[in-house]
Amino acid sequence: MTNTTGVTPDLRVGVVGAGMMGADHVKRITERIKGAVVSAIIEPDAGRAAAAVENAPGAQAFTRIEDAIEADAVDAVLIATPGQFHEPVLMPALEAKLPILCEKPLTPDSESSLKVLEAEQKLDKPHIQVGFMRRFDKEYAQLRELVTAGDAGELIMLRAAHRNPSVPESYTQKMLITDSVVHEFDVLPWLAGSPVKSVEVKYPRRNELAPERLREPILVIMELENGVLVDLEMNVSVQFGYQVATEAVFAEGIARIGQPSGLELWKSATYSRAEHTSFVTRFADAYDEQLQRWVNAVRAGTLVDGPNSWDGYLVALACEAGVAALEQSGPVSIESAERPAFYA
Amino acid sequence: MTNTTGVTPDLRVGVVGAGMMGADHVKRITERIKGAVVSAIIEPDAGRAAAAVENAPGAQAFTRIEDAIEADAVDAVLIATPGQFHEPVLMPALEAKLPILCEKPLTPDSESSLKVLEAEQKLDKPHIQVGFMRRFDKEYAQLRELVTAGDAGELIMLRAAHRNPSVPESYTQKMLITDSVVHEFDVLPWLAGSPVKSVEVKYPRRNELAPERLREPILVIMELENGVLVDLEMNVSVQFGYQVATEAVFAEGIARIGQPSGLELWKSATYSRAEHTSFVTRFADAYDEQLQRWVNAVRAGTLVDGPNSWDGYLVALACEAGVAALEQSGPVSIESAERPAFYA
Amino acid sequence: MTNTTGVTPDLRVGVVGAGMMGADHVKRITERIKGAVVSAIIEPDAGRAAAAVENAPGAQAFTRIEDAIEADAVDAVLIATPGQFHEPVLMPALEAKLPILCEKPLTPDSESSLKVLEAEQKLDKPHIQVGFMRRFDKEYAQLRELVTAGDAGELIMLRAAHRNPSVPESYTQKMLITDSVVHEFDVLPWLAGSPVKSVEVKYPRRNELAPERLREPILVIMELENGVLVDLEMNVSVQFGYQVATEAVFAEGIARIGQPSGLELWKSATYSRAEHTSFVTRFADAYDEQLQRWVNAVRAGTLVDGPNSWDGYLVALACEAGVAALEQSGPVSIESAERPAFYA
Amino acid sequence: MTNTTGVTPDLRVGVVGAGMMGADHVKRITERIKGAVVSAIIEPDAGRAAAAVENAPGAQAFTRIEDAIEADAVDAVLIATPGQFHEPVLMPALEAKLPILCEKPLTPDSESSLKVLEAEQKLDKPHIQVGFMRRFDKEYAQLRELVTAGDAGELIMLRAAHRNPSVPESYTQKMLITDSVVHEFDVLPWLAGSPVKSVEVKYPRRNELAPERLREPILVIMELENGVLVDLEMNVSVQFGYQVATEAVFAEGIARIGQPSGLELWKSATYSRAEHTSFVTRFADAYDEQLQRWVNAVRAGTLVDGPNSWDGYLVALACEAGVAALEQSGPVSIESAERPAFYA
Repeated sequence: MTNTTGVTPDLRVGVVGAGMMGADHVKRITERIKGAVVSAIIEPDAGRAAAAVENAPGAQAFTRIEDAIEADAVDAVLIATPGQFHEPVLMPALEAKLPILCEKPLTPDSESSLKVLEAEQKLDKPHIQVGFMRRFDKEYAQLRELVTAGDAGELIMLRAAHRNPSVPESYTQKMLITDSVVHEFDVLPWLAGSPVKSVEVKYPRRNELAPERLREPILVIMELENGVLVDLEMNVSVQFGYQVATEAVFAEGIARIGQPSGLELWKSATYSRAEHTSFVTRFADAYDEQLQRWVNAVRAGTLVDGPNSWDGYLVALACEAGVAALEQSGPVSIESAERPAFYA
Repeated sequence: MTNTTGVTPDLRVGVVGAGMMGADHVKRITERIKGAVVSAIIEPDAGRAAAAVENAPGAQAFTRIEDAIEADAVDAVLIATPGQFHEPVLMPALEAKLPILCEKPLTPDSESSLKVLEAEQKLDKPHIQVGFMRRFDKEYAQLRELVTAGDAGELIMLRAAHRNPSVPESYTQKMLITDSVVHEFDVLPWLAGSPVKSVEVKYPRRNELAPERLREPILVIMELENGVLVDLEMNVSVQFGYQVATEAVFAEGIARIGQPSGLELWKSATYSRAEHTSFVTRFADAYDEQLQRWVNAVRAGTLVDGPNSWDGYLVALACEAGVAALEQSGPVSIESAERPAFYA
Repeated sequence: MTNTTGVTPDLRVGVVGAGMMGADHVKRITERIKGAVVSAIIEPDAGRAAAAVENAPGAQAFTRIEDAIEADAVDAVLIATPGQFHEPVLMPALEAKLPILCEKPLTPDSESSLKVLEAEQKLDKPHIQVGFMRRFDKEYAQLRELVTAGDAGELIMLRAAHRNPSVPESYTQKMLITDSVVHEFDVLPWLAGSPVKSVEVKYPRRNELAPERLREPILVIMELENGVLVDLEMNVSVQFGYQVATEAVFAEGIARIGQPSGLELWKSATYSRAEHTSFVTRFADAYDEQLQRWVNAVRAGTLVDGPNSWDGYLVALACEAGVAALEQSGPVSIESAERPAFYA
Repeated sequence: MTNTTGVTPDLRVGVVGAGMMGADHVKRITERIKGAVVSAIIEPDAGRAAAAVENAPGAQAFTRIEDAIEADAVDAVLIATPGQFHEPVLMPALEAKLPILCEKPLTPDSESSLKVLEAEQKLDKPHIQVGFMRRFDKEYAQLRELVTAGDAGELIMLRAAHRNPSVPESYTQKMLITDSVVHEFDVLPWLAGSPVKSVEVKYPRRNELAPERLREPILVIMELENGVLVDLEMNVSVQFGYQVATEAVFAEGIARIGQPSGLELWKSATYSRAEHTSFVTRFADAYDEQLQRWVNAVRAGTLVDGPNSWDGYLVALACEAGVAALEQSGPVSIESAERPAFYA
């Protein structure tokens, strides 16, 4: 008795961008993701490309996505370049009808996002998944279940905090929104089941340990369409560790996620537990889960199992409002296009 | 060898108001507070007065504070009536140079507060202590020490929550500010070492379990003079329990108070700890500590060991701004009189 | 209307022993305990006596308890001398029919304890309360309620730990039992509702940070009459802090007491909470509560509201077995006299 | 540029036994483990075999391991049958020089374990890894690191608890040791860096909710060669959930592992967190990690990356002592053969 039916060949993934994020994805696919293989590295910088190829047995290097497509080297595309380079990859990949996992953001602004949406809609179904991997985190999933089940009553408020010990030199004031809050713009509406209606920024006293160019932390206040109010502390120089926590205020109770326990230690008159120091440990499992489920979805033909490009567009809108709110007092409203039935 | 010197007679306290709060204080003094005795109950309602006197051996009943003073029946006064009746008791008590512990608020508005301050300043030193008992809570004290010591760097934000399971029928929308947030108006500036500069109210989705007359919870945003930003969730129908929690965001770390531990239980696939259901258990020790230290201060001649009437005035100002903010969008600014050297 | 009935004079307490423990009780009664006053210090050492009297307005100094009794200087006696000096104070105090709060142990051995019991039984009711103040601790009380209510099913095991950062030079190997485990000998049977049946000691690897004369920690295994098994870690050089914790294993769940929360701090990649460093902070409230309730009981004529001298005797028995178990392998059994109906 | 070098074919694993455990491993390899494929199911029961093959694309079914070997159908063997059937599979697999991952125990008794060790030593290096997957659990790993680093001083005691809500009908008294404590026999010595020297069992009051045939929980006391003392609560009817916890007592502090946090909920006057209800959720990651690292080790030619068969033998010895201790009072000593240099 032999099972001769189901031996599907591995999914041949073309990874676009071989910077830190791209290299990380190459490693993940090659070492941990069952059913996928990196078949191509698309990267103009020859040195980076060579380094990435070394970690991906069987992979070919290309400088342009179009070449990889023409060579029939890929079944699917994972885009890991900075946001401003997404569109020129998304377009030919869509034209070639390839499934795409696109690192956040979909594109850096809502106008270009809309163009991508348009192109995608020429296909039979959504082909793009956007890399908001928090939805794959176990605790966010638990919290969402609690919202949906209604066991603690209706959701009323979300009180969130995103805390980083420090940020690299390249991090700008605007990136507080476009690089960090961007995640909350996806995951909090997803938790609450309602899109962002307005965004407002309040400035507390500046943290003197922040780089001079940054005026932070900031308090971001979001109103969702269903009335849920969000107050989010966005804090990137708080030294102590990396923490992404959300407190959900329900009609009948409170839930909180984001504080790890693990090993507990009593020493020197203190009880302590390690705190994360980077998103790497906090979200490692979620990154894996996201990629594995995407691979599975692609191989099964459903193509997307997570935030799709419409979600990416909504986030682009919210980022624009957020950036505006950095420089004006009071709420900045958001107006979105109609959601096409295609994304229902 | 006998110690013949120090036997001080107990402090004779006149308790004004024999409602729930007054009765509670009578019980506390009579049963737990060393060095004090309830010598008079001042209460116009004869039934209430009789009930209170029954619990206070040796106490006399009066209908007016003036009569108790004239009868030389009290060394000090504890005012436990509703705020609108404070002024007519404060005035004659000050005139008689009696030390006073006055339940919060000092008076219901800043104008009358100023009149009280004026009268008090005719004496040689402050005689009024206001009953913001949170300052006597062990955890608030620990947090304040952390702010002062600077061990986690400068204080940047305070993220607070005041959560009640439910409120009595007499509780109005305005009391969200004047009865509940009022405590935060005292204790948060005290923690941060800086008075309130502006107050703003945001409305999340209404909790449908709240009484119809209330639109809550609310999010109260305060800016302090030193730039510390406060976002306070004021929530009085959240069912699950009573919780007063504060998260302090410092330049280098985060501290939190207000989650009790006590007995921990693993049962039915759940780890759980009891949560408070009322301020009575949460702050019982603080109420005692406040009263005992006040008694001690009065007997030692320093008269006040806690928030004085100037603090009461500042809180009255903040309440006025808060009430205004209930009905306007954006921050409501606060301007205070000059602090007299008398209160330095 | 004046309440002329109930003004009871304060209870005049004679404190026997003016060492650290005695001085502490003098301070507690004088400063915190409503309804009691220190009227006499009984202490042969003139210097200590003088120091104690200074803190107790109105108190007289005596060198012998008999003199204080003859002078009619005391309504009640609090014994705070080391255990070996208890009997010569207990006897005349009982003869004078005075209520007694006796620091643990009742006496250092079960034989002398029995003599005390005999003398006490000539009175109309028990007059001695023994100072096992853990029964007054809020968390122990909660745990006992859980045992009694049966909400987690029958009690099966108790897994306890008594951890000290270090001990003074005078602390001997035997005191592991007679000074430290002695508390567990009272409180664990009280929790379980069943006396100790046997005691056994196991020696783990020695803590090299312990003083040379001590071979510790030890694991003390107790079997209670009702089959509940106890494994107690007795550990007096564990450096990190002071912790008295008990895990109760029920048929349906687990409960734990003894880990404080209070202020929580996130800093330097660590979540931490302060841990106690001494019994003073851990049990301060319990000491107060014990004394206050005893005062109240005495004034009400019930005389005892806590462990009585029969409990003291049972503990003496357990200590003897425990000391024996230090030097033999396997369990040491306990046999008690019949409990007189007098102590029912 | 193409990386033509490193494309290793997937490891062809033969899974022996298609019961619950075997089926679980088939699923794991097929769906989650990168670099491996189930190429054969070895199972005499035709129905079970067919069901397993259905989940493993490309796999063949065999009734005997010898046939799979002869057909050259496997590169490696995973044994998931009950312990008494391990030896007849281990022997031919060793003869064929195949790497083996063998579910615990290696064999059910130390005599047969020694025979396996003998056969294995005819090969060039150890080929067997035993499935004690706790070593792959993140928290155990953290605790071991703490022991090794010595940051809290020397390890003195281990206070462990293994708590199950209930057990299946097939579970016998002896299995308390051979099926449950067996894990502690591997992981606690591994934590402490020292093998078990003696095992003793104490019986507390019986849990009346346990099946009639079981007298449990039990308290297992182990002495390790280096003097570390272990008191382990083995408890399989405690209803509330699944908990495997260890408290490590060091010279300078205490560490604890095994209490999950995840989503925290405040509701109905209670703070709660979910507790595990099965080893599946508690150790899912560890099972994956174990298998993935074993696959990696085999492909890299080191063959073993975890407990080897010598460790399996030591555990068999401890189980024998444990079973004996079930029926005698006092400690049962353990004497092991000399460790061959081969396993150094």
